[in-house]
Amino acid sequence: MTRSPSLICKGCWQNLRLPVPLRGIPSLPFRAIGLKPSRMNPNTCTFCELAFTTIMRARNVDIDASVMFADLRGYTGLTETLQPETMSELLDTFYDACGNAIWAQDGLLNKTIGDAVMAVFNFPVKHADHAARAIAAARLLQEDCRVRFAEFARTHDLDEGSLGVGIGIDSGTMKFGEFGRSHRDLTAIGTVVNVAARAQSAAAPGAILVTQRVHDRTLELAWNDEGRDYTLKGFEAPVRLYAAR
Amino acid sequence: MTRSPSLICKGCWQNLRLPVPLRGIPSLPFRAIGLKPSRMNPNTCTFCELAFTTIMRARNVDIDASVMFADLRGYTGLTETLQPETMSELLDTFYDACGNAIWAQDGLLNKTIGDAVMAVFNFPVKHADHAARAIAAARLLQEDCRVRFAEFARTHDLDEGSLGVGIGIDSGTMKFGEFGRSHRDLTAIGTVVNVAARAQSAAAPGAILVTQRVHDRTLELAWNDEGRDYTLKGFEAPVRLYAAR
Repeated sequence: MTRSPSLICKGCWQNLRLPVPLRGIPSLPFRAIGLKPSRMNPNTCTFCELAFTTIMRARNVDIDASVMFADLRGYTGLTETLQPETMSELLDTFYDACGNAIWAQDGLLNKTIGDAVMAVFNFPVKHADHAARAIAAARLLQEDCRVRFAEFARTHDLDEGSLGVGIGIDSGTMKFGEFGRSHRDLTAIGTVVNVAARAQSAAAPGAILVTQRVHDRTLELAWNDEGRDYTLKGFEAPVRLYAAR
Repeated sequence: MTRSPSLICKGCWQNLRLPVPLRGIPSLPFRAIGLKPSRMNPNTCTFCELAFTTIMRARNVDIDASVMFADLRGYTGLTETLQPETMSELLDTFYDACGNAIWAQDGLLNKTIGDAVMAVFNFPVKHADHAARAIAAARLLQEDCRVRFAEFARTHDLDEGSLGVGIGIDSGTMKFGEFGRSHRDLTAIGTVVNVAARAQSAAAPGAILVTQRVHDRTLELAWNDEGRDYTLKGFEAPVRLYAAR
């Protein structure tokens, strides 16, 4: 599912009621001053990426948000058998599927880390139901990848099950912004980020594991999973995770 | 240890013999066309970040390089007890120490991921001894953080041992460049990246764990560690890791 990109910046519109053109001729004067669609969310602008510094006058802020980690399982194993160009095509496909799914829910594709992706929901475009949106993005991503990977497996004569995506989601308060004086880079920090990353590690290919906090914020989703306790690296107590379908 | 930043781009000089000014008045016309010091390595320019696309005419290339992951242990635990401003100061300190250590060895601070950092050595500034340089950066980072964290612990009345850095390094061929058509972001992909990340997970606070490949490329370092086999997530066979001191 590819939506046509927004013509004005959703972040500037929501936060400042400013119609900042992102595309077409009206966007040209804005581009001249360095304002263009964000790589992390093409429906917002590069100014929004730094909105907390310019508007909130802080280098980083505490936000309530959801974090999703998605990891392409089987990628490194295939490196042994497939051509580099084919591997590159596979990763392009995965990242594109991530972008589509995350942006459809107004999320921020914050980082690509090797064959994994980290997304933040509720910044800069805000939605009170960000936990539900993260789950919706995860489901769309799984569905989309199942189709795309099945085709990829057929084309390249691979086992159907050799590729899959593992996803973990947590919600709560985190620090978001720029850290470090000499290296500037947007990132989110806090237990929520670490738990989401660990939940992703625990997820089998094709699975979406979410925390109690995500579960409790999305009771309308009619959960039919009672959860299971997982031992996650770095956490002494077992962590209860729920499988979203 | 803070070195004064390079006046010309080290990457453009090494690869193209072009003296591209990064600072001062001579840099102004270059800044006007968007060429400025890279955030990932302030001694190279933003053009170098994309050198493979413009010079090598490929979106991503196979390079021989070393990857280092460094993780700030104890950070999330402290979130419970310390003020947000203090936590932010701690992370600033860690990222600054990372930048200093990585850039002193001409490495690229490629990503910050929560309380972890990923660095690549041998791009865009090339050095045949990149494995030794990654170890040198790791040692400097450990040393620097020991001093900085001891002071931080004293100032904030914490246990000396509550903060530490775990580091993992691997060397070899990886894909480096941009992946994805809709989201553009520099990253490195391959087994080397995954092994380095897992080695970091296995490292105790204060430790530097490197792989057999890194060990064998740096025999001049007079290793007095015989290595130990570790079971790393995602790898069926045990992986031998060596502690660098």
